[in-house]
Amino acid sequence: MKARSALCPLPARIAVLGLTLAVLCGCASRPPSQAVEALPARPASQAVDPLASWNDGPAKQAILEFVADVTNESGAHYVPPAERIATVDNDGTLWVESPLPTQLLFALDRVKALAPSHPEWKTTQPFQAVLEGDHAALAASGKKGIEEIVMVTHVGMTTDEFERIVVDWLAANKHPELKRPYTECVYQPMLELLAYLRANGFKTFIASGGGVEFMRPFTERVYGIPPEQVVGSSIETKFEMRDGKPVLVREPKLFFLNDKEGKPVGIQKFIGRRPIAAFGNSDGDLQMLQWGAVGDGRRLGLIVNHDDGTREYDYAHGSKLQSVDKILDAAGPAGWTVVSMKNDWNRIFPSE
Amino acid sequence: MKARSALCPLPARIAVLGLTLAVLCGCASRPPSQAVEALPARPASQAVDPLASWNDGPAKQAILEFVADVTNESGAHYVPPAERIATVDNDGTLWVESPLPTQLLFALDRVKALAPSHPEWKTTQPFQAVLEGDHAALAASGKKGIEEIVMVTHVGMTTDEFERIVVDWLAANKHPELKRPYTECVYQPMLELLAYLRANGFKTFIASGGGVEFMRPFTERVYGIPPEQVVGSSIETKFEMRDGKPVLVREPKLFFLNDKEGKPVGIQKFIGRRPIAAFGNSDGDLQMLQWGAVGDGRRLGLIVNHDDGTREYDYAHGSKLQSVDKILDAAGPAGWTVVSMKNDWNRIFPSE
Repeated sequence: MKARSALCPLPARIAVLGLTLAVLCGCASRPPSQAVEALPARPASQAVDPLASWNDGPAKQAILEFVADVTNESGAHYVPPAERIATVDNDGTLWVESPLPTQLLFALDRVKALAPSHPEWKTTQPFQAVLEGDHAALAASGKKGIEEIVMVTHVGMTTDEFERIVVDWLAANKHPELKRPYTECVYQPMLELLAYLRANGFKTFIASGGGVEFMRPFTERVYGIPPEQVVGSSIETKFEMRDGKPVLVREPKLFFLNDKEGKPVGIQKFIGRRPIAAFGNSDGDLQMLQWGAVGDGRRLGLIVNHDDGTREYDYAHGSKLQSVDKILDAAGPAGWTVVSMKNDWNRIFPSE
Repeated sequence: MKARSALCPLPARIAVLGLTLAVLCGCASRPPSQAVEALPARPASQAVDPLASWNDGPAKQAILEFVADVTNESGAHYVPPAERIATVDNDGTLWVESPLPTQLLFALDRVKALAPSHPEWKTTQPFQAVLEGDHAALAASGKKGIEEIVMVTHVGMTTDEFERIVVDWLAANKHPELKRPYTECVYQPMLELLAYLRANGFKTFIASGGGVEFMRPFTERVYGIPPEQVVGSSIETKFEMRDGKPVLVREPKLFFLNDKEGKPVGIQKFIGRRPIAAFGNSDGDLQMLQWGAVGDGRRLGLIVNHDDGTREYDYAHGSKLQSVDKILDAAGPAGWTVVSMKNDWNRIFPSE
């Protein structure tokens, strides 16, 4: 995924933020009225299927064959458990990223929460635009405005304080269109895939463009992925002893952008092993799939394609927010599996 | 530990490199003739003791009581397994760092190995000094010279190529004074401590000033710590597709220095959980112990003090290479345990 929830001014993010602004003006391809459509409960006969939310078809088959191959000790493609590393994008691959990435919605909400301490924001852009819900004015504030919003809302506090803010926000807020907590806007088939991999000796990691400290507070509970297996973008922090107690203070400077070419770089730096399975959904994941799912030995590359405008969102051929051309073009020659949310998944969300 | 095996020019390293140069001129406090002195084999009665190489005493007692407390589900200090994180320094805490840190010896050896491709080095400092074993000339080349040596030997290749170089070097070389492979110059009591913690549900991490890609090739085999649980200093890498194959190329620029204030910063960035146990041996570990072993709840801070000039090296009060004043001064008020290698360990190395 692209690191749309900007952590810091950075040239590489200009295009992404521009697209985000376009979306702020209302470009979601999915009408809110279709937000929640429950599917029938799964028949009991599927209860033992670890990938029950996956319809039979080439995508499910590719997963099953890959896992069978790398775990078959007498086979040609056997991989020892220690080397069974899977890296998975977050936004758009594990949870919903429309109409805006969750971390950007968090930043906008934080402006509202902090407003009482900043009376000057009532007459200062881009904050005035956020407080008044003036999307046109917010868009007019441009990349600089969005960056200012993200920066103000993400730095200055300790890492412990930031974690508490994230936890509280996730507990108190719901997705504006799906009308359920953000942590329930996760894809049930992907939860099953992660669990299935772990049951087969894999270590599952997130490799996201999103902020690592925004994800870590919920990844263990929601995805079964502990904080130490989350790789993401991050800002600088500074160690201090305050009244005899150690703290890390979040500073207004980017440390690492885990997106595009940064994803394999981040995977090597933070994990130190090359994955043999990599899952993403957009062009920001291309290099991660090249690193994890191209090369010697048996590998699995999987791309979640958002083609279900009824149950989720339709941007199968990209959107103003998200480009997918490069990764979809690469899929065929590389032998990666493109997952149709519409056809390959009989359930989208856990609560269905 | 200090990040003495410099990865890149950096002001913070000047003092360290200065000390390293002093040591290059011959300041080791341990005569080579005392290199290997075998101890009697352990009596069979100790076979079941998971900390058999630790003598009974306050250090061993502190470890046993800490582990008993945090694993006692009905006790006041219980810590769930997921939060049992221990971070351990490498140089001087898990393996020998005298007379020079292993990674610096590696860099010097690499100059010799690469010399045939660099005929100009025969008459160019600091390389000429390395090739001729001229310690005085090497010291005269200063910080800049050492940095040049480290840079030339650590960058330009892919991450896979560098790993192969490290693996081959470790297999082919022995410690100049202890006369055994570097990976056998590790402290048996610390191996036992790591295994004991893991047997009690801990996840053990290395947090070292050394280069992370220098350590990862051997940490799993030697310490039982997999690559993804090694935090260290690192340089920038660049992702490329070469002839359809993905590579990461090591670039001549520092990415992160995991030393002093950088240790808690790195622990939070790479692990994302605060440790409850932290072990080090010098002032470069002070902030890591403050982060992991100061605060609410039961914590264990442990400092390996090198006071055994007979079996290892004596720099109990610091050396030109290593300062220990700050961490030893902090130990008492913080309640950290100072381990005397001489008195608390009945074995130093696995081969004894």
